[in-house]
Amino acid sequence: MGCGTSGQAAPSRTSGSVLASAPVSRNSALDLPDEELLLPPQADAQPPPAVAHSVVLVGMPGAGKTAIGKRLAARLGLPFRDADAEIEAAAGMPITEIFARYGEPHFRDGERRVITRLLAGPPLVLATGGGAFADAATRAAIKASGARTLWLRCSIATLLRRVAGREHRPMFLNADPAEVLQRLMTARHPFYAEADLTVTCTDESPEVTTRRVQDALDAVVPPRRLPVGLGDRSYDVVVGPGLLSRAGGLIGPVLPARRVVVITDSAVAPLHLPALRAGLEAAGIAILAEVAVPPGEASKDFSRLQEVLEQMLGAGVDRRTAVVALGGGVVGDLAGFAAAVAMRGLPFVQVPTTLLAQVDSSVGGKTGVNLKAGKNLAGAFHQPRIVLADTDTLATLPLRELRAGYAEVAKHGLLEGALWDWCETHGAAAVAGEADALTHAVLESCRLKASVVVADEREESAEGGRALLNLGHTFGHALEAEAGFDGTLLHGEAVAVGLGLAASLSARLGHCSQEWPSRVIGHLAAVGLPARIADLPRRFTIDALMGRMAKDKKNRDGQMRFVLMRGAGDCFTSSEVPAEAVTALLRDEGATG
Amino acid sequence: MGCGTSGQAAPSRTSGSVLASAPVSRNSALDLPDEELLLPPQADAQPPPAVAHSVVLVGMPGAGKTAIGKRLAARLGLPFRDADAEIEAAAGMPITEIFARYGEPHFRDGERRVITRLLAGPPLVLATGGGAFADAATRAAIKASGARTLWLRCSIATLLRRVAGREHRPMFLNADPAEVLQRLMTARHPFYAEADLTVTCTDESPEVTTRRVQDALDAVVPPRRLPVGLGDRSYDVVVGPGLLSRAGGLIGPVLPARRVVVITDSAVAPLHLPALRAGLEAAGIAILAEVAVPPGEASKDFSRLQEVLEQMLGAGVDRRTAVVALGGGVVGDLAGFAAAVAMRGLPFVQVPTTLLAQVDSSVGGKTGVNLKAGKNLAGAFHQPRIVLADTDTLATLPLRELRAGYAEVAKHGLLEGALWDWCETHGAAAVAGEADALTHAVLESCRLKASVVVADEREESAEGGRALLNLGHTFGHALEAEAGFDGTLLHGEAVAVGLGLAASLSARLGHCSQEWPSRVIGHLAAVGLPARIADLPRRFTIDALMGRMAKDKKNRDGQMRFVLMRGAGDCFTSSEVPAEAVTALLRDEGATG
Repeated sequence: MGCGTSGQAAPSRTSGSVLASAPVSRNSALDLPDEELLLPPQADAQPPPAVAHSVVLVGMPGAGKTAIGKRLAARLGLPFRDADAEIEAAAGMPITEIFARYGEPHFRDGERRVITRLLAGPPLVLATGGGAFADAATRAAIKASGARTLWLRCSIATLLRRVAGREHRPMFLNADPAEVLQRLMTARHPFYAEADLTVTCTDESPEVTTRRVQDALDAVVPPRRLPVGLGDRSYDVVVGPGLLSRAGGLIGPVLPARRVVVITDSAVAPLHLPALRAGLEAAGIAILAEVAVPPGEASKDFSRLQEVLEQMLGAGVDRRTAVVALGGGVVGDLAGFAAAVAMRGLPFVQVPTTLLAQVDSSVGGKTGVNLKAGKNLAGAFHQPRIVLADTDTLATLPLRELRAGYAEVAKHGLLEGALWDWCETHGAAAVAGEADALTHAVLESCRLKASVVVADEREESAEGGRALLNLGHTFGHALEAEAGFDGTLLHGEAVAVGLGLAASLSARLGHCSQEWPSRVIGHLAAVGLPARIADLPRRFTIDALMGRMAKDKKNRDGQMRFVLMRGAGDCFTSSEVPAEAVTALLRDEGATG
Repeated sequence: MGCGTSGQAAPSRTSGSVLASAPVSRNSALDLPDEELLLPPQADAQPPPAVAHSVVLVGMPGAGKTAIGKRLAARLGLPFRDADAEIEAAAGMPITEIFARYGEPHFRDGERRVITRLLAGPPLVLATGGGAFADAATRAAIKASGARTLWLRCSIATLLRRVAGREHRPMFLNADPAEVLQRLMTARHPFYAEADLTVTCTDESPEVTTRRVQDALDAVVPPRRLPVGLGDRSYDVVVGPGLLSRAGGLIGPVLPARRVVVITDSAVAPLHLPALRAGLEAAGIAILAEVAVPPGEASKDFSRLQEVLEQMLGAGVDRRTAVVALGGGVVGDLAGFAAAVAMRGLPFVQVPTTLLAQVDSSVGGKTGVNLKAGKNLAGAFHQPRIVLADTDTLATLPLRELRAGYAEVAKHGLLEGALWDWCETHGAAAVAGEADALTHAVLESCRLKASVVVADEREESAEGGRALLNLGHTFGHALEAEAGFDGTLLHGEAVAVGLGLAASLSARLGHCSQEWPSRVIGHLAAVGLPARIADLPRRFTIDALMGRMAKDKKNRDGQMRFVLMRGAGDCFTSSEVPAEAVTALLRDEGATG
């Protein structure tokens, strides 16, 4: 590739270039008006499109983008375009000649303009040249267009059979096709992996592949992206099914280098690590180490942290290697803290696999381990580069854990308002594992949490702010600490009881009507969560709980701080709660002594 | 205090207030023109002042500010003014009446204006009212004036004897003087402690106290402040003698609350902890815990970190408690990391007591501990709120440690230029412990380091930047790691050899003349530091050193990175050093194999 190789001098870039930005004659320019390039489907008298998005096929030369694309367009009732053919028509010369005369960068600029214009019109199926989606600016333009992208992935053997005899392709001039293909695959696959969908092609007929492509398009539920706007620490929370197998394509663009270590636990690893590994490898992301800690809260301690760090550093991690946390809150907190301190800070990615982690702990940058003196007392604020909440992983959660995670959804509902109404109507479906309900719960929880975190990243607000996320947690932490973190009482279960207590306390102090504790306790009970101290399988004394609450991390200058509610969507922090009111509440709700 | 208590209505603030900002008649205003208030010394036919600064006496009522102030003024040949008397004269009424009619805030505003005007003129001795220096804005104005401030500190017994019978003081109206004094002392001492000097008064005669005050003023070497401009993480490095005993006054203004834990080591504690403790307590700063770790590099590990954190949290640390590091680089790195992670970040103060820590590790926010995989591999960037480099502490350092610390001064000299010339002339005096030379070395090292850190806080520059501070360290770290951190080879000694090697490598690669390695090695040898591998008491193999250097934390994408020099003040980072050149150098300089 590169500049012209014939004896003829290449024309200068400033005069006579057919790919220059300035308007030139219609017969030789890529800058043709849109109507010339985009024959609207109506003009072809085709049926109205069945899909609202264009479909862009990407992949290697020989992957079948044109063959599959034409068949797919017919099935979808959309026009088909081949980007290379459009470029050649617009330029009035073959691509080999554009390459030879003007060089690749110039060709890519023109290609990007043609593709952008094609995708700006009504939906169509577009086959792109093999290099288009590997070009960063073209890839960004395609993503920005809203088109659905699909990678036709082929083995090198298949590709070689298909391109045999196509020596007119400029890339195979005077070169060994196998070597050229291998080099291009290594370079381009990481970018193809950023496509929305991947269909692996075999030597089956184009019809069969096309049907599989259509099935994949029909089945796809596009993930939702929630931006968390924190200046140069901004990131997206991506929520949807099937994200593990696309992890590399989603993560790759936000990493400084394609090297990671994966931290997980030994319960999650067999369930989800293979999919994540494949997803990373598809995008050419090297996994330097996979570290699996024992599941459970006990792994959130200093000796485990040190072990993880030694394994990471021993595996050759450098400052551009990212740490990927695959698992629940324990793994996320531990791996995030390891990422925060390894070489004074490595890029970090959250791949939460529990509802609790997806709706809460994976967003916001809080990481840490426990001390004897208390939970999460050593840690760091370390924001992830991206959060991948793959809702498919929730299908593997035990019901008790799913329910416990739901307590944080209910909490977010009470903080937000509309989400609480949704909880009362659809919460039971979420706890029953219904996919759409879970996706909504995760998405809206992350949206609420992100907005709170953006306003008060480091929990420094005098009132409200991030401390609001502790609704129900002053009580919850005390119950959890008394129970001893041994699994008797899950964090979410403690929070559920804490929400009931916070609502009751708010009513007793006159901040809301008695309707609120009734609704909160009623809803939590309806989804199978404990909502009162008396619901718990063990007894708690008032003195013990008051003692725990007096040590809460959020207290200021010795004053206990509570989050109270006036109603769903109207919560506030208060340091003015009389101890007697709390004591009386605890007694009435089932604490002893 | 407060507003008027007589039957007569207080005049409104907008009309008739004698303390209003708008000009009023000369007889009743505090806004008198300067010439009226400040009789210049010349007009009094006094001898020209022997001191260039005004002296402001602060302290409790009865501390003797007027009695000592008049005598001190006579001795210094300066005019004396009593701020309260000036205010009464300007306002045309006694202070009791100003308080009664207009309230304290109004009085403080007027007091501040009078004091500011008095201090804007030629040097004088000024006695201030007991509340003046406790007022934040007035205190700031006095500090900004450049006057020297001196706290006359008395016990409550002495004060009570002196104020007996002075019931005309408004503060003692209808109250028990002992109780009033105790309350005021508790409230004001923390602010008086911010004075430049403290003289403790006993029941000795005013003449004796005045002589001691004059001696203290004569002896004082005012500390120098270097600002490190990092936005909302900006702080000052304060360099000078006697800072430990003033620590509370220096630290207090930058802390969120007057609560600290002190982390030190068991070698430093007996030498310097009593002075620091007294300095903190004088400013009403409570020490929740004093944690002394064993001295030496072995304390920079995770189990020690965890122990320190447990002790801190067990002592009742909250988010507004600061961590004070008192000691060398090990203590600073360990305590700083503990501060970075305890409750996800506590305010931090560096009080370095070794030359190495004062000229290098205490500035810039790098904290951390060692892993088996290497030194400082786990840590955080956590900037201190202030650095107090008390040069008096260097007198207790063993010569070998002083020398080792000097290696970093020489490094800063090579990076900066003018400081290198100073090193060649005065470095020997610094290593001999000469106070002025040490102060210059610390100050100029911190200045260079601060400028580098400000430009590249998190070591992210592609070229140059913070990595330049590793001049000599690529070699130095390799030598140190090979020697095993057991005290055989101090960090600074390894750096000294590294500086020699870096200069030699630069000359071999043609970046500078052979003059530079000769000067560098010659100077280091002259101050008693090793400067060549052959100078060290143990042998090193080329393979081992090359292997260590290949793992250097600063390497990028597998490329070894060196800091090279074209001359003093002209250093640069380079990833283009042929391994053969390094190998040959190591062989010629004394490595084996």
